[in-house]
Amino acid sequence: MWVVCSDLEGVFVPEVWINVAKITGIEKLKLTTRDIQDYDELMQYRLNILDEHNLKIQDIQGVIASIQPFDEAFEFTKWLRKISRFVIVSDTFVEFADPLMEQLDRPFLLCHSLEIDESGRITNYILRQPDPKRKTVEAFQSLMYKVIAFGDSYNDISMLQQAEVGILYRPPQNVIDDYPEFPVAQNYAELRAILEQYIV
Amino acid sequence: MWVVCSDLEGVFVPEVWINVAKITGIEKLKLTTRDIQDYDELMQYRLNILDEHNLKIQDIQGVIASIQPFDEAFEFTKWLRKISRFVIVSDTFVEFADPLMEQLDRPFLLCHSLEIDESGRITNYILRQPDPKRKTVEAFQSLMYKVIAFGDSYNDISMLQQAEVGILYRPPQNVIDDYPEFPVAQNYAELRAILEQYIV
Repeated sequence: MWVVCSDLEGVFVPEVWINVAKITGIEKLKLTTRDIQDYDELMQYRLNILDEHNLKIQDIQGVIASIQPFDEAFEFTKWLRKISRFVIVSDTFVEFADPLMEQLDRPFLLCHSLEIDESGRITNYILRQPDPKRKTVEAFQSLMYKVIAFGDSYNDISMLQQAEVGILYRPPQNVIDDYPEFPVAQNYAELRAILEQYIV
Repeated sequence: MWVVCSDLEGVFVPEVWINVAKITGIEKLKLTTRDIQDYDELMQYRLNILDEHNLKIQDIQGVIASIQPFDEAFEFTKWLRKISRFVIVSDTFVEFADPLMEQLDRPFLLCHSLEIDESGRITNYILRQPDPKRKTVEAFQSLMYKVIAFGDSYNDISMLQQAEVGILYRPPQNVIDDYPEFPVAQNYAELRAILEQYIV
């Protein structure tokens, strides 16, 4: 019996912060860990910018609701839910993911969360635990499931390594170069073909 | 952050074997662990009866597809998926649950499985692990989630005990008598009221 663990951003939906930056026109929100390497520093910087623009959680959720999942993402997640147990494991925050989950018919999602005050101001962020993607695979293995995991980036690697089967989905070339041991799928049809070697 | 773990039969759908017995008219399939206490003996007995009647997995799935979830079960699971992470933890088999999961829009389900040969004959059953309901709660706790669990019967008790919050849902009186420490909900509205003390 398999559990399928998948990344969210870059696999089923576009990158959230980049699109929030685009839609709101706030250029500074485009910075990523490539620009500010320390994640905590980056997040505090982002939350400060939201404050500066007086953007509450409801505003951000409104923006995120206008982001659409990739073409065929809905059909693909529907297929995954039919053939296996399917979990999205993401480094995003549940409050940000919510409008996207709604569009994907609410698959099972494990991720981080935000601290929000009564006015809707985001006061802080809460990382659920260190290395949550690997831990998630371990948790399902403790339940005697085998795990197939896929994702597009460095933060997915520990999940792919812990899983019985790891797959890179549309990764940047540097990720492929650094982790040549993983098979690469460039679209859902290729991903499905790899999954079907194990599951169906 | 909470995970909601729920039993399946007796909570969202009727008891599967009893209804298969009713619909097929095979009286012998009505036996439960009250009649044959050893579970393995009971299951081998059931599989032999299916064989005697030449019932394949596709026949049984056809029968199970005619069983309907309880009134409001769909709406209630939809609400649970919106407000939290929602997992059904069942002692049924994934192949039996499948037609019911389809009707409930495929919530996340952890359960056991069957061995089926190419003709569709059920040759054996595979229990994923001992005490799977407790283990599932432990797995989510290892991911730094708190767990609210509910179920109707003795096989749910270890799950309710391991969870931060355990609730009995429409239990028989003997279960209430044996475990008076758990709050009891008799319908979805009462269950929702208890859940909302913690989650919403």
